[in-house]
Amino acid sequence: MNVLIINCGSSSLKFQLIDSDKEMILAKGICERIGSENSRIVYQKISSKEKEITEEVIPTHKQAIEAVLNALSNKKSGVIQSLSEVDAVGHRVVHGGEKFAASALLTDDVIKGIKECSDLAPLHNPVNLIGIEACKELMGDIPMVGVFDTAFHQSMSETAYLYGLPYELYEKYKIRRYGFHGTSHSFVSKRTAEFLGKDIQNMKIIVCHLGNGASITAVEKGKSVDTSMGFTPLEGLVMGTRSGDLDPGIMEFLLKRGGLDIDDIMKILNKSSGVLGLSNGLSSDFRDLGNACEKGNKDAIRAEKVFRYRAAKYIGAYVAAMNGVDAIAFTGGIGENAADVRSGICQYLGYLGVVLNMDVNMVSSIEAIISASDSKIPVVVIPTNEELAICRETVAIVHNC
Amino acid sequence: MNVLIINCGSSSLKFQLIDSDKEMILAKGICERIGSENSRIVYQKISSKEKEITEEVIPTHKQAIEAVLNALSNKKSGVIQSLSEVDAVGHRVVHGGEKFAASALLTDDVIKGIKECSDLAPLHNPVNLIGIEACKELMGDIPMVGVFDTAFHQSMSETAYLYGLPYELYEKYKIRRYGFHGTSHSFVSKRTAEFLGKDIQNMKIIVCHLGNGASITAVEKGKSVDTSMGFTPLEGLVMGTRSGDLDPGIMEFLLKRGGLDIDDIMKILNKSSGVLGLSNGLSSDFRDLGNACEKGNKDAIRAEKVFRYRAAKYIGAYVAAMNGVDAIAFTGGIGENAADVRSGICQYLGYLGVVLNMDVNMVSSIEAIISASDSKIPVVVIPTNEELAICRETVAIVHNC
Repeated sequence: MNVLIINCGSSSLKFQLIDSDKEMILAKGICERIGSENSRIVYQKISSKEKEITEEVIPTHKQAIEAVLNALSNKKSGVIQSLSEVDAVGHRVVHGGEKFAASALLTDDVIKGIKECSDLAPLHNPVNLIGIEACKELMGDIPMVGVFDTAFHQSMSETAYLYGLPYELYEKYKIRRYGFHGTSHSFVSKRTAEFLGKDIQNMKIIVCHLGNGASITAVEKGKSVDTSMGFTPLEGLVMGTRSGDLDPGIMEFLLKRGGLDIDDIMKILNKSSGVLGLSNGLSSDFRDLGNACEKGNKDAIRAEKVFRYRAAKYIGAYVAAMNGVDAIAFTGGIGENAADVRSGICQYLGYLGVVLNMDVNMVSSIEAIISASDSKIPVVVIPTNEELAICRETVAIVHNC
Repeated sequence: MNVLIINCGSSSLKFQLIDSDKEMILAKGICERIGSENSRIVYQKISSKEKEITEEVIPTHKQAIEAVLNALSNKKSGVIQSLSEVDAVGHRVVHGGEKFAASALLTDDVIKGIKECSDLAPLHNPVNLIGIEACKELMGDIPMVGVFDTAFHQSMSETAYLYGLPYELYEKYKIRRYGFHGTSHSFVSKRTAEFLGKDIQNMKIIVCHLGNGASITAVEKGKSVDTSMGFTPLEGLVMGTRSGDLDPGIMEFLLKRGGLDIDDIMKILNKSSGVLGLSNGLSSDFRDLGNACEKGNKDAIRAEKVFRYRAAKYIGAYVAAMNGVDAIAFTGGIGENAADVRSGICQYLGYLGVVLNMDVNMVSSIEAIISASDSKIPVVVIPTNEELAICRETVAIVHNC
């Protein structure tokens, strides 16, 4: 069947049309700068390999979906004759709170449940809902499935998900660790076990999803037992522009002594921090940082070092959380491509018997065992594929209906 | 020589008079509730073993020090004939910023330096300074030494002490990890090496200082390379009443959705969180929690589990930070006494080859190797003694003058 994957951001909408039987992408693209004057749609029919970029006014997410459906079905570059050839839609939904521990068919009740989680993700869930409502209007009764970033992590125990806060804050507001990137962590952990020819039920796996957003998850017997992102996607690793872990006392200091209000601070922590901030504004892109490091740029070296060190400490923490580890997987834009970041992190892990094969570690974006044959713990690169994972979830739910 | 150790809190003043040649306490005590109507001094002459409790009006820290000096030298319960028998004073100072990487003779310049660090510790340094000034007034030209909670951790590398923040926040405000409990971590790490008959220069030691305040430090070759408290003593472990690590997004949520201002929040994070908060207000005292756990109290069990898990993750993280570990030491009120907490934490560390001797682990407040003979990593209990450490620092500085 043909499954349309929709991933709505605040001003963008990414899409893929996937033939789920062949697990083959037919077309993909992105609507950018929705609501601004210079909005556009980038569309690619996979068989032609050429990207079409169309500048057009896209004032709302509904109009973005109209543009997507038009691109998919028009005569020139379309891949389907009519919308009736789309059999299902899979929507990425950021926050499923404690309600959704798995993907769900988007019934009215489920949509209501997603709305109720909006308090926890005020920037994300409302825009995900706009995408869902727009598809409903434009595509009628087609089955739609919500796939939640948080769902995979709902298996965490209370011991792992509670902060050291008054318990009533959990009861009243549901303040707890949720974790994100769950679709990717689930996909990559499963694939790691398959790729190594092992049964995931007997494995302790640490998945390092390192991209512009970055998180590390401890996966035991196929289930997430802990993860570095928390109540929001700000906690944990140093990221491209996000700070990750901070002493809460820093928030007080910035509010009282820094002359900033909470919105200023959150903007700094989300947009100007991470390796961008640590490198003194040089770049949030690890390709730039890697090049600058090679030239001896101190700002870039500082940022890379802090990034790697924080990641290594999380890996170490999760080895303790699971009392051992059987495989470490790297994924995400940085995890799949930055050989120096992978080796820099693994350098801390000699005590586990981790040894990399530095030649194989030069791989980029392909599945590979990058550890040496005498490494006690296999280390792998597994490209993530969140759209394919959403497609598979969607198909499974639709088939079960 | 006789060294008076002074530890000023906001409304209390702890003191000990130590004969440094014999490393023997002569007298000790505490002035409590300074500035309130029911203030009192608790005084104990060690040779008599009886505590004298005197209710008296102590409006200021200066008057507290007067009361201390009077108690030490009066005819009834005194241990010295006159103040001239006090040869030096050692002051605990909370924050030495980046200025003080070691203890320092309290010259006018040093006192000025401590004042300049007050921005970083607005609750602590000013009151430490009041104690210093009061001693100066009352005891004249006696040599006084400042011993900083932060000094031991000044050996951390930039990679360990920087947060994922814009670098200019470090340059402008010196926002970074400082770490606290340094006097204890230094004392216990040194003693761990001695006790195990090893050279600290060849060791990687993890010191778990678990008390009402709690922190864990990675000590490599005798130097602190990372520690769990950060910019303030709020970060890191779940503590008696302090939250430890939090997603910064929780601060935003509480400010915007919880109807709280930053002072409310900081009060919650400092006073009503930690195991007290997690246990639904049951207790911040691990003796109470331990008893309640034995009776199957769910609130107590939850709090203990989260406390142990967080500590185990920090140990795991620091093993990665040092790429190995040669000894793990427990100290502080909980670390020295709570056998179940120690075993609960070590339970996560089987992958390191840690095995406890459950019989020896029942020890309380004495030096002991609590790991089994076949444990790959020795685990020890080392009672801390911050006053003795301050005394030694003071004597060393005074002898060098």
